[in-house]
Amino acid sequence: MEKEHHFIDKYLKPLSIKSETYPTGIGDDCAVIDSGERLITSKDISVSGVHFPKELDPYFIAYRSVAIAISDIFAMGGTPTAYLLGITHPKPNDSWFESFSRGLNDFNEDYDVNLIGGDLTRGELNISITVFGQAPDNLLTRKGANIGDLIFISDLLGKGKKGLIDYRENRDNDTNHYLKPKLPISLMPKLKQLVTSCIDVSDGLLIDLKRICSSSNVGAIIHLSEDIYITDEHDLIAGDDYVLCFTATAEFKEKILALNSSIKMIGQIEEGTKVKVLNKNNEEIKFKKDGWEPFESI
Amino acid sequence: MEKEHHFIDKYLKPLSIKSETYPTGIGDDCAVIDSGERLITSKDISVSGVHFPKELDPYFIAYRSVAIAISDIFAMGGTPTAYLLGITHPKPNDSWFESFSRGLNDFNEDYDVNLIGGDLTRGELNISITVFGQAPDNLLTRKGANIGDLIFISDLLGKGKKGLIDYRENRDNDTNHYLKPKLPISLMPKLKQLVTSCIDVSDGLLIDLKRICSSSNVGAIIHLSEDIYITDEHDLIAGDDYVLCFTATAEFKEKILALNSSIKMIGQIEEGTKVKVLNKNNEEIKFKKDGWEPFESI
Repeated sequence: MEKEHHFIDKYLKPLSIKSETYPTGIGDDCAVIDSGERLITSKDISVSGVHFPKELDPYFIAYRSVAIAISDIFAMGGTPTAYLLGITHPKPNDSWFESFSRGLNDFNEDYDVNLIGGDLTRGELNISITVFGQAPDNLLTRKGANIGDLIFISDLLGKGKKGLIDYRENRDNDTNHYLKPKLPISLMPKLKQLVTSCIDVSDGLLIDLKRICSSSNVGAIIHLSEDIYITDEHDLIAGDDYVLCFTATAEFKEKILALNSSIKMIGQIEEGTKVKVLNKNNEEIKFKKDGWEPFESI
Repeated sequence: MEKEHHFIDKYLKPLSIKSETYPTGIGDDCAVIDSGERLITSKDISVSGVHFPKELDPYFIAYRSVAIAISDIFAMGGTPTAYLLGITHPKPNDSWFESFSRGLNDFNEDYDVNLIGGDLTRGELNISITVFGQAPDNLLTRKGANIGDLIFISDLLGKGKKGLIDYRENRDNDTNHYLKPKLPISLMPKLKQLVTSCIDVSDGLLIDLKRICSSSNVGAIIHLSEDIYITDEHDLIAGDDYVLCFTATAEFKEKILALNSSIKMIGQIEEGTKVKVLNKNNEEIKFKKDGWEPFESI
């Protein structure tokens, strides 16, 4: 059995690029962050058998785990820059690390981020990512939604759910949104001056929009339409989409929709505390749940 | 089964205190760090059955997990300020969280740090901590040791090992160093101007001193003496001590020893690449291993 430092030295250190902001690279007790700017940071955990299938290629475990953590940086209007990586693994080997580190490398290139440190230890497979990003001048929080604001999503719902089905049916994985989530990297710089609140849809549109409503002390109405999902209305509670759900005042509606044809207006913020979904006849559609909840099924 | 937000809202949010540097508290996609200063950060994972006994009181799981992560901040001469907390738990309940959050609260008070965010999800019990600290003007890295430097430890070795034995024998836990590691909070401000390299002894003195030697391209000789451990020479490879092992030029020897009577000089840096332990007759003592290694026994 190889030791911890074998895997760190061989596979992870080469991914850690020293820079002015992150001058140390992997190899000491701590990583240094010398930004001088306001930072945002977030931690996200992906567990084997819970957040990804147990038999998933380590390349995709890496890519997906970092992607869904970095998604929180975009959700606040930030620019992702770096991350710490915690790997708990029952029995690592070179083959696993070779594939896993390729996934990290591809993600780092796709989103221009840097691995700056972390930990490797023994246990059930668990990937813990702490992400860092430059904070925007105006943070996009969950609590800025106001009554009358319009509600948008940055792309169609349901791609994550479909990606997992495709993966199980052994379909081509190269553009699979569950395995390699595409994040709104090019949209955010143009969008961030126009919105009042924002969240990434990780657990499901309804549960995540409820988080905005709860933080902003408002309610919301969604007008269900076929052009906001790819399969059916259950895509509203599917999660794993990593699209942005955001609110904006009505004056910016056209400007926002002109940014990208994938952006859809889905409803508006109302008084109250509830998130209601209405069909074309303005009848309320009830859902059995709002989205994914880690402790629901146990 | 309660949901994720129940535990976060009830037990973790009250521990998150808004401040100028950490203005947001728990409750959005990211935490904000508005320090304007150079930061250091590190990630450390504690796994049930690997890093702590499975049946351990959650109070101690919390205290110990945060302590051993914060130890890395002291090892680089920093001042710990905050941490992100990732909890993977198979089936949380209020009783577990009540005890766990008391452990966090006591640690936060003992070391003046703040919980600023994190994640809670489902899986085998795994506590992932990302710590933040103010960086000192001169970082205490592993690579600053020079030939001729003296080697010191900040306190006796073996307290962690004895703490675990005591715990198993149901002895009083209040001052147990395995369950509630004491970190060198008061020593560091006085020490940090005097040392050339530093590491915290987490996995064992020999393995951690070797990390300094490897980073500094030097070797080391330890003169074994009964006044550096509490039980026997196996305390040199026991780990879980979280004392500092550091090097300094000979001119500062008396100044360093005068800082605290618990500080011991244990050897000196030499040419070469090896760490040798000599007994009183200058005979080399061989150890079967250097310290704790997560993947050794599998």
